[in-house]
Amino acid sequence: MPLKTAQEYEESLRKLNLAVYMFGKRVENVVDHPIIRPSMAAVAQTYELAHRPEHEDIMTATSHLTGEKINRFTHVHQNVTDLVKKSKMGRLLGRETGCCFQRCVGMDSLNALSIVTYDTDQAYGTQYYPRFLKYLEYVQENDLTCDGAMTDPKGDRGLPPHKQADPDLYLRVAETREDGIIVRGAKAHQTGAVNSHEIIVMPTIAMREADKHYAVSFALPSDAEGIIYIMGRQSCDTRKLEEGLMDRGNILFGGHEALVVFDNVFVPWERVFMCGEYEFAGKLVEKFAAYHRQSYACKVGVGDVLIGAAQTAAEYNNVAGASHIKDKVIEMNHLNETLYCGCIACASEGHKEPSGTYAVNTLLANVHKQNVTRFPYEIARIAQDVAGGLMVTMPSESDLNAPETGRWLKKYFAGRSDTPAEHRMRILRLIENITLGTAAVGYLTESMHGAGSPQAQRIMISRLANMREKQKAARHLCGIDPE
Amino acid sequence: MPLKTAQEYEESLRKLNLAVYMFGKRVENVVDHPIIRPSMAAVAQTYELAHRPEHEDIMTATSHLTGEKINRFTHVHQNVTDLVKKSKMGRLLGRETGCCFQRCVGMDSLNALSIVTYDTDQAYGTQYYPRFLKYLEYVQENDLTCDGAMTDPKGDRGLPPHKQADPDLYLRVAETREDGIIVRGAKAHQTGAVNSHEIIVMPTIAMREADKHYAVSFALPSDAEGIIYIMGRQSCDTRKLEEGLMDRGNILFGGHEALVVFDNVFVPWERVFMCGEYEFAGKLVEKFAAYHRQSYACKVGVGDVLIGAAQTAAEYNNVAGASHIKDKVIEMNHLNETLYCGCIACASEGHKEPSGTYAVNTLLANVHKQNVTRFPYEIARIAQDVAGGLMVTMPSESDLNAPETGRWLKKYFAGRSDTPAEHRMRILRLIENITLGTAAVGYLTESMHGAGSPQAQRIMISRLANMREKQKAARHLCGIDPE
Amino acid sequence: MPLKTAQEYEESLRKLNLAVYMFGKRVENVVDHPIIRPSMAAVAQTYELAHRPEHEDIMTATSHLTGEKINRFTHVHQNVTDLVKKSKMGRLLGRETGCCFQRCVGMDSLNALSIVTYDTDQAYGTQYYPRFLKYLEYVQENDLTCDGAMTDPKGDRGLPPHKQADPDLYLRVAETREDGIIVRGAKAHQTGAVNSHEIIVMPTIAMREADKHYAVSFALPSDAEGIIYIMGRQSCDTRKLEEGLMDRGNILFGGHEALVVFDNVFVPWERVFMCGEYEFAGKLVEKFAAYHRQSYACKVGVGDVLIGAAQTAAEYNNVAGASHIKDKVIEMNHLNETLYCGCIACASEGHKEPSGTYAVNTLLANVHKQNVTRFPYEIARIAQDVAGGLMVTMPSESDLNAPETGRWLKKYFAGRSDTPAEHRMRILRLIENITLGTAAVGYLTESMHGAGSPQAQRIMISRLANMREKQKAARHLCGIDPE
Amino acid sequence: MPLKTAQEYEESLRKLNLAVYMFGKRVENVVDHPIIRPSMAAVAQTYELAHRPEHEDIMTATSHLTGEKINRFTHVHQNVTDLVKKSKMGRLLGRETGCCFQRCVGMDSLNALSIVTYDTDQAYGTQYYPRFLKYLEYVQENDLTCDGAMTDPKGDRGLPPHKQADPDLYLRVAETREDGIIVRGAKAHQTGAVNSHEIIVMPTIAMREADKHYAVSFALPSDAEGIIYIMGRQSCDTRKLEEGLMDRGNILFGGHEALVVFDNVFVPWERVFMCGEYEFAGKLVEKFAAYHRQSYACKVGVGDVLIGAAQTAAEYNNVAGASHIKDKVIEMNHLNETLYCGCIACASEGHKEPSGTYAVNTLLANVHKQNVTRFPYEIARIAQDVAGGLMVTMPSESDLNAPETGRWLKKYFAGRSDTPAEHRMRILRLIENITLGTAAVGYLTESMHGAGSPQAQRIMISRLANMREKQKAARHLCGIDPE
Repeated sequence: MPLKTAQEYEESLRKLNLAVYMFGKRVENVVDHPIIRPSMAAVAQTYELAHRPEHEDIMTATSHLTGEKINRFTHVHQNVTDLVKKSKMGRLLGRETGCCFQRCVGMDSLNALSIVTYDTDQAYGTQYYPRFLKYLEYVQENDLTCDGAMTDPKGDRGLPPHKQADPDLYLRVAETREDGIIVRGAKAHQTGAVNSHEIIVMPTIAMREADKHYAVSFALPSDAEGIIYIMGRQSCDTRKLEEGLMDRGNILFGGHEALVVFDNVFVPWERVFMCGEYEFAGKLVEKFAAYHRQSYACKVGVGDVLIGAAQTAAEYNNVAGASHIKDKVIEMNHLNETLYCGCIACASEGHKEPSGTYAVNTLLANVHKQNVTRFPYEIARIAQDVAGGLMVTMPSESDLNAPETGRWLKKYFAGRSDTPAEHRMRILRLIENITLGTAAVGYLTESMHGAGSPQAQRIMISRLANMREKQKAARHLCGIDPE
Repeated sequence: MPLKTAQEYEESLRKLNLAVYMFGKRVENVVDHPIIRPSMAAVAQTYELAHRPEHEDIMTATSHLTGEKINRFTHVHQNVTDLVKKSKMGRLLGRETGCCFQRCVGMDSLNALSIVTYDTDQAYGTQYYPRFLKYLEYVQENDLTCDGAMTDPKGDRGLPPHKQADPDLYLRVAETREDGIIVRGAKAHQTGAVNSHEIIVMPTIAMREADKHYAVSFALPSDAEGIIYIMGRQSCDTRKLEEGLMDRGNILFGGHEALVVFDNVFVPWERVFMCGEYEFAGKLVEKFAAYHRQSYACKVGVGDVLIGAAQTAAEYNNVAGASHIKDKVIEMNHLNETLYCGCIACASEGHKEPSGTYAVNTLLANVHKQNVTRFPYEIARIAQDVAGGLMVTMPSESDLNAPETGRWLKKYFAGRSDTPAEHRMRILRLIENITLGTAAVGYLTESMHGAGSPQAQRIMISRLANMREKQKAARHLCGIDPE
Repeated sequence: MPLKTAQEYEESLRKLNLAVYMFGKRVENVVDHPIIRPSMAAVAQTYELAHRPEHEDIMTATSHLTGEKINRFTHVHQNVTDLVKKSKMGRLLGRETGCCFQRCVGMDSLNALSIVTYDTDQAYGTQYYPRFLKYLEYVQENDLTCDGAMTDPKGDRGLPPHKQADPDLYLRVAETREDGIIVRGAKAHQTGAVNSHEIIVMPTIAMREADKHYAVSFALPSDAEGIIYIMGRQSCDTRKLEEGLMDRGNILFGGHEALVVFDNVFVPWERVFMCGEYEFAGKLVEKFAAYHRQSYACKVGVGDVLIGAAQTAAEYNNVAGASHIKDKVIEMNHLNETLYCGCIACASEGHKEPSGTYAVNTLLANVHKQNVTRFPYEIARIAQDVAGGLMVTMPSESDLNAPETGRWLKKYFAGRSDTPAEHRMRILRLIENITLGTAAVGYLTESMHGAGSPQAQRIMISRLANMREKQKAARHLCGIDPE
Repeated sequence: MPLKTAQEYEESLRKLNLAVYMFGKRVENVVDHPIIRPSMAAVAQTYELAHRPEHEDIMTATSHLTGEKINRFTHVHQNVTDLVKKSKMGRLLGRETGCCFQRCVGMDSLNALSIVTYDTDQAYGTQYYPRFLKYLEYVQENDLTCDGAMTDPKGDRGLPPHKQADPDLYLRVAETREDGIIVRGAKAHQTGAVNSHEIIVMPTIAMREADKHYAVSFALPSDAEGIIYIMGRQSCDTRKLEEGLMDRGNILFGGHEALVVFDNVFVPWERVFMCGEYEFAGKLVEKFAAYHRQSYACKVGVGDVLIGAAQTAAEYNNVAGASHIKDKVIEMNHLNETLYCGCIACASEGHKEPSGTYAVNTLLANVHKQNVTRFPYEIARIAQDVAGGLMVTMPSESDLNAPETGRWLKKYFAGRSDTPAEHRMRILRLIENITLGTAAVGYLTESMHGAGSPQAQRIMISRLANMREKQKAARHLCGIDPE
């Protein structure tokens, strides 16, 4: 059975030889590095939960290639139910980890490629689709975590790829050889990159012929020669280097992002899924984006954690019964469930693409993601309101543990009589973590820009709203169009 | 085949002898009264569209009682697909009529009763469910329009039914006889009441034993003796009495509400579905409310009309290409589609009740309706922004037609060179109609209070959000609950 | 003393011979026409309150020309205190009338001209300023109501005045004569036009040389030959033609708008304040707009009425003590007072112009008006929430008075035991009036578009925010600019 | 002249012997501690700017006690102009420092005491006011920074002070002696505490007789025996311990908060300003709160920095000309200037108290602060939108400086051709700092809870909105109250 355990996943990562840099230095042991490890642990939950009977239905699927039971993260959606379960899986894991669990981007890349490689073959008689299916089977059989890499550095946003001062500001085919291609460039903001076995590269925008060399998609092992990872900083990242756990807020899990540099990397042909078919670059972006906008189902799960934390903080202060507190908790839930409606609806309204893969409703997926750029910020604001100011003025865990300061914290941070100060501090640290700390990177800023910044969704909404139908109805009702 | 045509529907109404009052006087000919007729025409669309092949799938269903093809408005939902189609039917008809088409409330009453009469029988060994099914078959066979009547006048909101100064402020069983019951009271805000063949009464709140006599549900022909209808005023209602059509905005359709008084009305036992089983009053309210909150799918359709009208007005002014106008149209669409997500998601996440009827997800239906109390107001605000001020300062159709004034209006209300002033005026009148006029009653205030005022949804959200699960996740992640 | 009484004001209007059209017909008696009279009564309050000792400080000022006590509406602001009192006068009258009292637009025109005629004279050696002062003294001495007329029909918004298909779509100088000019065109949305003694015309946009003939400003008696008024329709306008008063909501006051056509009207030179100085057209627009955006102080007063009505409705239902109702009333007050802050701040931060006139802070006046395009809509939404649905489903006053229907309304619309149904109906009709009816035109749509649509304010905010200073501070703090 | 220089201020701090703890250990050198020093530097700006001629008018005032020129932070407001200048000073310093400059809380305490000590003396014949004036003169003469300490730990929010499990959860008089009092308890969230010369303690809520011993106000030197400071953690605090400066975002300034414990501290009578007069505890809270809510003028200045940073980031990406970016910058400015209106209006509408001190308009100050709990969060959200995702995924300064990683960052983080990657990184770090990092504590969470959490303002708005007047107007206009 292809389902890896969390333990096997961790072991498999140890076998990789990734070129990872942090704070200007090469990281020797990626898996055990204290800043990286919690993010590995979050990915590991995607393996762990697949083995739990109560989550099996959500976390696993049956491969349409092999008929075997596989991790849903490696699955290509075969029906609307698959799409709906994907949304539920996102919420479940968001709630279990309280952060970005990083594995959806690879799943979305696989699904997008399963549509576009087929369509490309239909248009050009190429053989990308069978090649892709072979690769997919490999991913499923080995239960691999894939990084889906789309966002180029982009340099001057006013210029297309081929007009940039530096031609590498978008990733490109630098050389075509008999056995494969040499690529050069970089992908930014790569979530979970150093916890991945594979990296799947896609173009970042629709392209014209002049940008043909930038229309490239391929997959590589994450430790292929010439791939370099430079870790991004997160707010409060170095708390993970401190002695205690409490000040991290989320003591178990985290996420990470990296700049991934491709320094003249060789890709063999059997791993290339697009190479110059620029007319399909836009479609690949659009399909991936729609899937990935659905994936922001995960924020509903992180929202669950934040709401639960705020409610707990209110109980510790004995204010949970105040009508304004109750109303604020309702509002957080209302906003969070409105997000849930979005990721369920775009799945429920999905459809079959020519290759047989099921795609989400693109309009609704964009509407969902647009709300994700707004509501988590408001939920975070309300959570800070409910939590109280102590959330940002609390001394450190060391202060709690040192006798001289600890006695004062225990005395003065007591809440409702049955609540130890430590519990109050822990729950407030978690709220800090999600609204200002490492998890805020995922819950807020990534909600804003991940899977495309808000304006990208607005353009899609503009394009997909059926204005002709709406105007026709209006003109008819007021008598301009009499029939 | 039970499907009536629009024409047959109108004829069937003529046979009724309703006691309708308006402006203090009895209305002699209800069907042809100019203020009422547009609302009848809107209901007639629910019959008309069922005969159109392109809408057949949405507008009709197969009766689980007779196997016959019936109008979906008389159907009891048999699966999730039925629920989703109901949402789509609401949007479709909202877009076709640009107003409240009034027939959903009866459908929602039938479905709620199909659940609760069964449950009551299970609990008490009563025979309500078979009695209800017989009634349902009658409704389906005759393709009837039913008014679902829930809201009592309620008097002092601080007091329960039996403590009101006047015991009739909630509708109640005044007398129990061998052949049936005598009821007294009133139901307020009854949408579409005088266009209905039947009126289905339900209690308005959860009740305790002291309110036992108020726990009553039954169905009656709308012209049963002792039922009196007093028509409500709508903003701009009397424009329908004026000579021209244009100033109505929507020249075809409208809605209406009425106060329905039950002046010692007799109900035979075969039409009684609850009588004293107060423990089930709350459940009936909750089930009806959930279905009816889903029904606000219709506002998405009215939103379509308003968005189409705003876009058209912008084109007539030649400002549709301005970036701020485009952005406002996107925002209207975004909000409208967010509403759509809500009514699709609560249907898609539906479940089977013991009676076999499918119910929507109650939490998500409440979340949906809560958004309906907000977004149409914002869409209306933006539509007024895009439309421009002329919408409220335009002279009348008579001014356009009179030579002395008409020449000035034609000269000075010209927009883009190809647009006659009359078209500009028509589309602006439609926007006025939906945001300030007769249709604003439905699009705005009914969106606020119909199917329960906002606070009612908040209470349900509070009750249904799984706080225990959320708090458990939070406590686990910050280390309060170590396991 | 120049202060007219309300009675004298009404009499003075009777002496005018205005060419007013409504519903395609000439209005014979303007002052007594039931649709117009409430708006005359609202203007009359600006005279009445000036005689009340408790409002004297706010309502009157000392003329800087004559030293006489004058109505503040004819005053040119001489200091910051004058500006602040103007804002307070707006709120006061908004609260007294519950509608648009129409007289601020003339005051704002006079003040804008007092700045720009002076500046024009300084630039060109013209004599507009002394001419204007003479006119101002005439207005002050006779305590006149002036209509300030700025908005042209504008036709195709994509084209400048001189490129319109019809050259009259912006008002222009059609002919220059020795004794004056002949003007042709129209001004739209003229609030209070037919209650005014004078009409002061200004250009509507900044202009270039090609539009020179459109750069014209002048004042005329409102009944000058060739001026034609075509009354605009308001939502629910014809309720004023009905027998009773109650269904009007506001039984005392109203507003009106008209299209004002200038059909080759002669203006003598002593009434001309700009004629071809196109470089100053933009400045006149900007100065007038800033003053007039401040004038939306009045909406705070209308907001007071709406909040008071909502609170009263809640008390009648006995729900005023519910925490969610209290919170909604707080929110309405919060938004309303935020608006108040805007109109006070832009006055308090006013400054002296070269002519000696005090001008408001333009940035803050625009910020204030921008909020006015948002908050009244939200206050109206909340008011509808608090009021309950009966507001739009209530039968008519005739129903209340007719015995057959009246007995049911009195019985079933009883609220808290001490509240007669009539009182509930009256207060709800007032809420309907302000949120959907005649007053909604002023409180909502005029708040949107009056004194410039939202985008106009955004352009000004963009122009006036000191971005250089902000960027300098940011660059300094992060070390880009080390000094 | 009493005006200290920044240098003198720093030197004066070195003379203090504060008991400060951080990370469980006593801080030996408070002034030079890298985490504390930037906050000291921010306070120092309040001294520095008072010496700059361009800011003299705002930053200094004339003492009403001595007639000498003093720092405005030690001034008691003598007129409305003083109040307005205080708001401007807040914005100025917020923009100069990009963070909380910590000195306003002492100014607000002094002003509140100048009102309430006078009123207490009037009521009881006590001598607090002369005692206070003597203290004030001392503060002015020595240009001292005072911490104003109000917020008690509060324990179980459902219980009053005297019913808490631990009687010290509100600060109290533990013993009364001939020469003074012994106090015990703590004050939480003390902004700028360890940069202050003095600490002024006030009660935190209105009290009844049973809480008499908690009604205490006094001033002490910050290093009085028994006062212990435990530093709070801020998001990203330890970046100040790292080698480079860039990752701090704001490389110059910061803030801090501390828990201040009073471990049986002696206060001589000449420093006691309230001791048992519980009826005045509420008034002192209310006066202080109103002043301090006005003080959130500073957030307008921090908003200036954030807007400037976002605009700069957009320019570096060459997207500043995109219409959606321009619109977002306008929106940030609009919200920021709306806040400015609030702090100007509550000052401009100030009034004289019996003691001669000018107080702000309490209603408007509360309205202002309520907006501060909302708009900075929205401005921050938009700033993150405009900035782009790199803000949270950027590698560290060390990565930029190390040759192996630096070459890639320089290559791939290039924006518009003239922008070095380093500048892009610096401006994004500043945005991170204000929206997620150390400054977010002040700009966001402190905006929420400082000077009272949102609900505290809502209660005041509810109490101060003149509902009677509003309801009277409404009832009059709809005919309930005929006269």
